[in-house]
Amino acid sequence: MSASSPSSAAPDDVEEGLVLRPKFDANGLITCVTTDATSGDVLMVAFMNAEALQKTIDSGDAWYFSRSRAKLWRKGESSGLVQKVLEMRLDCDQDAVWIKVEQGGGAACHTGRRSCFYRRIDRDDTGAPLLTPVDAERLFDPAKVYR
Amino acid sequence: MSASSPSSAAPDDVEEGLVLRPKFDANGLITCVTTDATSGDVLMVAFMNAEALQKTIDSGDAWYFSRSRAKLWRKGESSGLVQKVLEMRLDCDQDAVWIKVEQGGGAACHTGRRSCFYRRIDRDDTGAPLLTPVDAERLFDPAKVYR
Repeated sequence: MSASSPSSAAPDDVEEGLVLRPKFDANGLITCVTTDATSGDVLMVAFMNAEALQKTIDSGDAWYFSRSRAKLWRKGESSGLVQKVLEMRLDCDQDAVWIKVEQGGGAACHTGRRSCFYRRIDRDDTGAPLLTPVDAERLFDPAKVYR
Repeated sequence: MSASSPSSAAPDDVEEGLVLRPKFDANGLITCVTTDATSGDVLMVAFMNAEALQKTIDSGDAWYFSRSRAKLWRKGESSGLVQKVLEMRLDCDQDAVWIKVEQGGGAACHTGRRSCFYRRIDRDDTGAPLLTPVDAERLFDPAKVYR
């Protein structure tokens, strides 16, 4: 089968087309998964509005939209830990992007960890969920970085 | 600094605790990023409600909640392409999980591709966004798998 989009697909077909037509949700957001370009590990999950997506494409730095602060946000603007985007991908229904980044300072999480995913979900002897710290070393002290 | 949670943190502290306290959104969902345990590539982004999360933890197979169909969904129940979960992780604010899976049949996307992220976002000569197919080979024919 063809490795490219079928010739029968319209250029702006959501799944098979080659035109960017992001499907923003009711809040104007798409999901962004950010991975470390070297290790492949998931660093964080965040959201982009149309402006954040455009700025990321144009600048090559990761921009997000903070739901809690309700504002556009250039990753690293407070901490200096900028994310340089090496590759951007779009999913089948165009409501999620995956960016592979070079993480400035090595730490993406506001808690100082490399990744936001520093706890594994395990089960205890009774089968109940239990969290286990993994890769939970802090690479910076949040109190010193975010003043 | 310590690799485990600070002793000063309460066990049920959202960021530093070791108790699972998922923060579901207004629709009762958390985001799930699913990666291939071998390649590390992002296969898909989907959502879990409380029941999907519990069933995933208990069964070791990936369960999701389909927003479009508004129903609980065991990945592979139509296609047979089940996802075996090798590791689950939780993010800092407990509103996203990352699961590393062994993808049955090798393809996670309903279009037949290995990953839902089969298009790269590039820019054309004028700087406008342009999608380029990458890893876009179909491993199965959706018309034959979903009848």
